[in-house]
Amino acid sequence: MSGEESVIEAEGAVPTTADEGAAAGGESVGDSPLRREDARALRGETTYTDDFGQEAAALAFVRSPHAHAEVAGIDTEAAEAIDGVVAVYTWGDLAESDAPMRLPVRTGPLDCEVPGHPVLAADRVRYDGQPVAAVVAKDRYVAADGVEAVEVEYDPLPVETDPEAAASEDAPTLFEDAPDNVAAVGELGDREATDRAFAAAEEVVSVELENNRLIPSALEPRAALAEHDRTEGFTVTMTSQSPHGHRRKLSHTLGVPERQIRVISPDVGGGFGHKGHHHPGEAMAAWAARELGESVKWTATRSANYREGAHGRDHRTTAELALDADGRFRGLRVDTHAGIGGYALGGGGAMPGWYGRLLASQYEIPAIYCRSRCVFTTTAPVHSYRGAGRPEAIYVTERLVDVAAEELGADPVELRRRNFLDPDGFPHETAVGATYDSGNYEPTLESAVDAVSGLPRGGERDDDGRLRGVGIASYVESTGGGFESGVVRVHPDGGVTVSAGTHDHGQGHGTIYAQIVADEHPVAPEEIEVVEGDTDKIPTGTGTFGSRSTVVGGNAVAESAQEVFGKAREIAAHELDADPGAVETTDSGFRVADGAGEGSDAGDQRVSFAEVADRAYGRGLPEGLSPGLEATTFYELDNTAYTFGTHAVAVAVDPETGEYEVERYVAVDDCGVRVNPRIVEGQVHGGVAQGLGQARSERATYGADGALAASTMLDYALPRASDLPDIETRAQETPSPDNELGVKGIGEGGTVAAPPALVNAVVDAVPGVDHLDMPVTAERVRTAIED
Amino acid sequence: MSGEESVIEAEGAVPTTADEGAAAGGESVGDSPLRREDARALRGETTYTDDFGQEAAALAFVRSPHAHAEVAGIDTEAAEAIDGVVAVYTWGDLAESDAPMRLPVRTGPLDCEVPGHPVLAADRVRYDGQPVAAVVAKDRYVAADGVEAVEVEYDPLPVETDPEAAASEDAPTLFEDAPDNVAAVGELGDREATDRAFAAAEEVVSVELENNRLIPSALEPRAALAEHDRTEGFTVTMTSQSPHGHRRKLSHTLGVPERQIRVISPDVGGGFGHKGHHHPGEAMAAWAARELGESVKWTATRSANYREGAHGRDHRTTAELALDADGRFRGLRVDTHAGIGGYALGGGGAMPGWYGRLLASQYEIPAIYCRSRCVFTTTAPVHSYRGAGRPEAIYVTERLVDVAAEELGADPVELRRRNFLDPDGFPHETAVGATYDSGNYEPTLESAVDAVSGLPRGGERDDDGRLRGVGIASYVESTGGGFESGVVRVHPDGGVTVSAGTHDHGQGHGTIYAQIVADEHPVAPEEIEVVEGDTDKIPTGTGTFGSRSTVVGGNAVAESAQEVFGKAREIAAHELDADPGAVETTDSGFRVADGAGEGSDAGDQRVSFAEVADRAYGRGLPEGLSPGLEATTFYELDNTAYTFGTHAVAVAVDPETGEYEVERYVAVDDCGVRVNPRIVEGQVHGGVAQGLGQARSERATYGADGALAASTMLDYALPRASDLPDIETRAQETPSPDNELGVKGIGEGGTVAAPPALVNAVVDAVPGVDHLDMPVTAERVRTAIED
Repeated sequence: MSGEESVIEAEGAVPTTADEGAAAGGESVGDSPLRREDARALRGETTYTDDFGQEAAALAFVRSPHAHAEVAGIDTEAAEAIDGVVAVYTWGDLAESDAPMRLPVRTGPLDCEVPGHPVLAADRVRYDGQPVAAVVAKDRYVAADGVEAVEVEYDPLPVETDPEAAASEDAPTLFEDAPDNVAAVGELGDREATDRAFAAAEEVVSVELENNRLIPSALEPRAALAEHDRTEGFTVTMTSQSPHGHRRKLSHTLGVPERQIRVISPDVGGGFGHKGHHHPGEAMAAWAARELGESVKWTATRSANYREGAHGRDHRTTAELALDADGRFRGLRVDTHAGIGGYALGGGGAMPGWYGRLLASQYEIPAIYCRSRCVFTTTAPVHSYRGAGRPEAIYVTERLVDVAAEELGADPVELRRRNFLDPDGFPHETAVGATYDSGNYEPTLESAVDAVSGLPRGGERDDDGRLRGVGIASYVESTGGGFESGVVRVHPDGGVTVSAGTHDHGQGHGTIYAQIVADEHPVAPEEIEVVEGDTDKIPTGTGTFGSRSTVVGGNAVAESAQEVFGKAREIAAHELDADPGAVETTDSGFRVADGAGEGSDAGDQRVSFAEVADRAYGRGLPEGLSPGLEATTFYELDNTAYTFGTHAVAVAVDPETGEYEVERYVAVDDCGVRVNPRIVEGQVHGGVAQGLGQARSERATYGADGALAASTMLDYALPRASDLPDIETRAQETPSPDNELGVKGIGEGGTVAAPPALVNAVVDAVPGVDHLDMPVTAERVRTAIED
Repeated sequence: MSGEESVIEAEGAVPTTADEGAAAGGESVGDSPLRREDARALRGETTYTDDFGQEAAALAFVRSPHAHAEVAGIDTEAAEAIDGVVAVYTWGDLAESDAPMRLPVRTGPLDCEVPGHPVLAADRVRYDGQPVAAVVAKDRYVAADGVEAVEVEYDPLPVETDPEAAASEDAPTLFEDAPDNVAAVGELGDREATDRAFAAAEEVVSVELENNRLIPSALEPRAALAEHDRTEGFTVTMTSQSPHGHRRKLSHTLGVPERQIRVISPDVGGGFGHKGHHHPGEAMAAWAARELGESVKWTATRSANYREGAHGRDHRTTAELALDADGRFRGLRVDTHAGIGGYALGGGGAMPGWYGRLLASQYEIPAIYCRSRCVFTTTAPVHSYRGAGRPEAIYVTERLVDVAAEELGADPVELRRRNFLDPDGFPHETAVGATYDSGNYEPTLESAVDAVSGLPRGGERDDDGRLRGVGIASYVESTGGGFESGVVRVHPDGGVTVSAGTHDHGQGHGTIYAQIVADEHPVAPEEIEVVEGDTDKIPTGTGTFGSRSTVVGGNAVAESAQEVFGKAREIAAHELDADPGAVETTDSGFRVADGAGEGSDAGDQRVSFAEVADRAYGRGLPEGLSPGLEATTFYELDNTAYTFGTHAVAVAVDPETGEYEVERYVAVDDCGVRVNPRIVEGQVHGGVAQGLGQARSERATYGADGALAASTMLDYALPRASDLPDIETRAQETPSPDNELGVKGIGEGGTVAAPPALVNAVVDAVPGVDHLDMPVTAERVRTAIED
C-alpha cells in the first residue's frame, strides 16, 4: 500500500463517523471495531499501580516550600520517633550508598556541565516542591505525619521563574557552570541566508508571544511500587508510558544493570508524555525497598504531581516573517527562550529535534533561522508534553501567518494556499532540515474552510451582538520517531499473542495491533491477545509518546505478522501438497486456490490455522523449515512520517465580558492510512480538547516568591467537558510512502492545531487586535476590547 | 567443533575431577565454574510453589480407598456444613461446566478408544487413591476435615495390578473398548527376519525379567497455585518441568486457548519426568479458582503424590538372544507387557520411541523384533520416569548378554567387545530403526573394566568370607529429542538475558547456558542472566526431560548467541571503521586485530560491548542494519544424539544374610562435548543413585486388594545416602557430529547403566544363579543362595 497516490475520500475530504467501519462489518485495517480496551475500564476492572501492593510500606516526600534556597540542616529525629515510621532518609543517606541517585541529565546537547536532579536535595533546592527528605512508614497516613515532623532549615535565595528574565546576569544563578542560566543554545537553519532574505524582503511582520507553561494532568497521578524480590534486582510497577525507558533510567539512577530491573506498567490513567519521564518517586521507592528489604509504594498526591512533575511548553518567542510583494514567504526568523526549570531533566525546553524543525509548517520558506536558548529557572523541570515541541513551533508560524495577513490586508486562507508546498514535491526537505514524506495540503484546507464558510467573521456582530471570528491553522507533525519492537507469537493451538514495546494508556493499541495482525491473515482479531507493559515479557522497546505507536509499533507488528504468516503458508502448502503461491488465506486457515488444485474439488482442500500451528511446533514440519511460529521485529523509520491538516474554529465573543464560545470546530486531519478511523477520531478529539485547554484556560503560574500558584485541580484551569465545543472531524488519507502500512501518527495533532486556530479566531473577532497570548481568557479578551 | 574425530582424553578414558575446570580459570565451554544455582538453595532463598499464595484457599481431594469400584453415590452435605469449607465438588459439577476436565490421552497410538482420566472420578475408580471429590476450604486443615466428612458409596470390583496377568480374558476389564485390557500393541523390527535368525542360530539364550514399578520421589511433592486474575485467563504457578507443555495440557483440560493460560514454574525440588506430567491437582485448582473467583492452591501430600502421581517402569519381559558359533549376536526377540495403570495418561508403558529402539544397545544385531503390549491395570497411571524407556531396554539387553556369557562360558567383557559396533561405522542405523550419530565404545569399556580388574569375582570369597562379584553394563541413550526455544537478548547497557523453554530444577541450566553464550563472545558469564519457567516470558518451548536441555536448549541458545554477536561484530566494525573480519573479540568488547588496522596503534582501537549494545538500539547504527540486539532460535535435531558408556560394579555379598555392599562403582560415560564437566559428573552421580535405587531397593508394590503397599517415604525404599557407594566418574568426549556444540545429554545415563551393572555384579557373585529380579534385596539374594 506504500507508494500509492494520495487518496482523497469522495470529493475533497469527507466527514468521518465512528460507525462507518463498524457498519462495514469487517475487522481489519480501515475498519472501526469497538475498542477492546473499553469494556474493562467501563466495568471498573482496570488495575492501576496504586491498586497493587496494599501491604507495602508507604513513601512520602518532605518538599521544599522555597523555590530556591540552601538547605542548611535537616532534623529527622522527631519524625523517626513516630510510631509506624520505618525510616527517614536524606541526601546524606543516598550519598553513602552505591547508587548515584541522581536522575540522568538528558536534554540533548548541553553547553554546560550540571549535575543531575538529585532524588533528594543535596544542598540546595531549585524549585517549589523539590523533594528534600523521604519518609517511609507503615501506611500513607503515618508517612504524612512523618513528613510533617521533619524539620528543615532553609536559607532562601532569590528566585526567577520567567525564562527570558532568567537568561541574564541580573538573575540568580542556578548552576555555576551555566552562566546566565543558559543550559544550551540551539541553532537551526542558515542565519546569514535568512538575514539576506529579510534584507531583501518586501514586507516583514513580527510577533512576540508566549507559549504558556502547562501542567500535564493525567487523571491518575504518578505512582510506583518497588519490590526487591530477586537476589540482586528490582521489580518496579509504575505509571509508565515507556517501561523499557524507565528501566534504563532506573538503571542509571540506581546504578544497577538493566537486566536486574523489571518495570511493569499496568493500566495507566493517561500519560501525555509526563509518564515517560523519570521522577524522584520511583527511584526513591526502589532504593528504599532494597535498603529496607520490603516493598515500598509511592503514590503522588495531586499537589505533588503538579509541583514536582515535569511541566510542558514555557517558551517566550520573537518571530519574524519576510514576504515578497506577492505575499510569498521568503524568510522566517525565530528567537526562543525555553524555560527548562531547576534541573536539566529531560527533553523539554527547546526540544531541538521537534521544535525548530517544524517551523516551516506546510509552507515553502526558503530561509529559516531559529535560535533557541534553554534556560534554567527556579521552577519545576520542563519536559516533553503531548506535542512536545510541535505545538510550540506551529503556534509560532500559524500566528505569524495570520499577523501577516492582517498587516498585509490579505485573506489568511489565500495567504496559506499561496505558500503551500506543491503536492508533487514530496519528499520535501525544509530549510531547517526536516524531510516531509508526503503531503497534500490544499484539500484539507479547503475542507476546513468550507466548514466555516458563510459564518460571520472579522469582528462582525451577530444577532446577539456578539463579535464573530473565524480562525484556521494548518500544521504538520513529525510522528513515529525511534525504533520499536513487535513480536507475533503463534501458540501451538493457533492462538496468537502480539507484544510490542509501546504502552497503551488510552490509545487502543490492543484493538489496532489485532487489526493489523488479522489483516489479510487467517486469524480473527478476537483470537489475538496483545501484551504490553512488562520489560520481562517484551523485547527491548521504546514506548508510547510522540505519535509513534501505530507508526513504528504497528509496522513492527505488521512485519512480524508477515514473517509468521508467510511461514504458516509454507507449512500449509506442504500439508495441502500445493505450491505456496497457490495457497490462499481463509478466515481461519488456508486452502488451495480455486483452479490451482490437482483435482476437481480443489476448493475443499483446506487446512486450519490451528493445524498449521501444531505442525510448526515440531509435529510434522516440511524439511528445511525450523520449528516455531513467531517473529520479532525491531522497526525504525529512516525518517519520521509527517501528519498534517487544517483546523478551523468559529467563535462568538461577548464584548461586555470577553467571554466567548466556540461555535464550530472542524478538524481535518491526514494521518495517512487510518487503521481504525474511530480511534483516530478519538485521538483528534482528545488532542483538540487538550489544545483548547492550553489556548483558553491553562497556565502554570508561579508567584513572585516562586511558589506554584495553582497546585491542585481546583486551581489549575483544565477544560471541563462543558467548556468544550462539538468537535467535527474529517479525514483525508495520504499514505506515507516510507512504511508498509502507509500510516502516520495522530496522537498529538489536536494539541498542535487547536491553539493557533483558536487564537486566530478570537483575534479575528476582536477588532484592532493582532495578538493575544494564551490562555485567551475572558479577562484578556475584555481588556483587549477595552484597549 | 562438529564433525571432529573422537577425542579420547589422555590414554583411554581419564578420571574427571570437579576441580579440573575451575583450576583452568576460564569460564566457558569445557570449564567447570561453580553452579550459580547453588548459593540460593544453600542459603534457603529458593521459593517453591507452596511458598506462594499463602492467602489462597486450599484444595484437597477425597481419594478412593478402592483400586477398582463403581462410585454408587457421594454425599457432600456434611462436608459442606463445616465452617471454613468453601465448596465441595464432584464430577457432576465438572460435567456441568464448559471445561472437558479430563486429562488428555497421550500415550502414543492406541488400539482402543478410551476416555481421558477424569479430574474427579466420573462413575468408576480404577486405582487406589484416584480423586473422587474435591474440597476447597479456607486452609489445608479445614480442607482435610472436609475430605474426611465426604461420604462416598463404592461398589467394589475385582482388581488386577500385574500387567501380564491383566492382559487376559480372566482379568477384570477396565474399559469396554480395550479387550483383555490391552490399550496398544507396538511392534518394532522385522519379525520374520528375526525368526529366521533364531532358526539359524547356534545358541539361543533367554531371560524372563521384571522391570520393577517405581515411584518418582522428588523431595518436593507436586503443587499448583491457580489464579483467575485476568479477564478470561488463568495463571497457574506449579511444579512443572515443562511450563509450555503444562500450558497446553491445561488448555485441553480446561477448554480454554493456550494464550489465556500462564504457567509459571518457580524453583522446583526435583522432577525426574514426573513433573512433566499432567495430574488432576493443577486442573482442579484452576477450575475451582475460576468458579470461586479466588486463588486456590493444591499441594500434594507425600501419600497423595505416591498414590495418584504417575509411576514409572512396570515391565514384564521375555527376551531371547540368538548367537552364532563365534559368539556374535544374530538376533534379539523381545516380548514385553507394560503396565500403564488405570488410565491412558501419558507416554508411559512401552514408550515406543524410547524403549524398543534402544534394544540394540552398543551391539551389531542384524535382526531384532520387539512386541510390547500396553496393558491397563488397576494401578496408578504409568508415565515416563528418568530414563523413560531407555533403562527398561538396556536392562533387557545387558542382562541377556550376561546370561549368554554365563551359559556359553564366555567372558562377558569379551562377548560385549566382540559385538560392539565399529567406531568407523557411524552414523549407524540399528535393526529397530535408531540411527546412532557417533560412538566409540571400546575405550569406555576398557576404562571401566580396568577400574575393576584384579578385584575378586565370580563368587570368589574374600578374606571376610564374602562372595565377590563384578558386573558391567554398556549402554546407549538417545538424548535431545523435540524442539527447543532459546533467546539471547542484549540490553542497551550490554547486559544479557538468556531464556529457554527448558526448566531448571537441579540441572544447572543457568550455569551452562551462560557458559555457552559467553564462549568466544565478549561478555562474561556473570553478566548473563538466565530465565526459564514462565510461559509469558519465554517463546513456546518444550521443557526439561529426556536428557535434552543442553542438547536442544543449549544449541538453541548457542545459535541465538552467534546471531547476536555476529551483528554486534558488524556494529563494532562500523564503529572501528574496520572490516568485520578484522575485528576480534576481547573480554568485554571488540578490537581491531593486530596488524589489521590502518595505523601502527591498531591494538588500541577498541569498542566496548556496552557501547555496541547502545548503538544497536537505534543510536547510530550502520546503514542497512535494523535496530535491536536479540535473537530467538527454535532448535531441533534431525536425529537424536546417542550418549553411551560402560559402568562397572564390584560387590561383596554376605552369604549368611544376603546383604551386599558395592565395593566399587565406576561410571565411564561419553556425552560428547562436556559444557561443564562438574555438572556432567553431578548428573552421573544422581542418575547412578537413582539407578541403584531401582536395582537394590525400590518397588511400588500393590497388595492383593489393589492398595499401594508403600505410600509414604517411610515405607517406600528410596536409597539413603548411606546406601550409596562412592561413585567414580570417568569421561570420554566423542562429539556429536549433528549439532554445533557437539553435545549429547547425560541426565539419565546413570539410571540406564546402573541397574544392569548392579544386577550383573550380584548374579556374578552368587554361584549358580543366572538372574535375580530387581530390586535385588538381601532377602532375594539370601533365598537365591539358599536355593
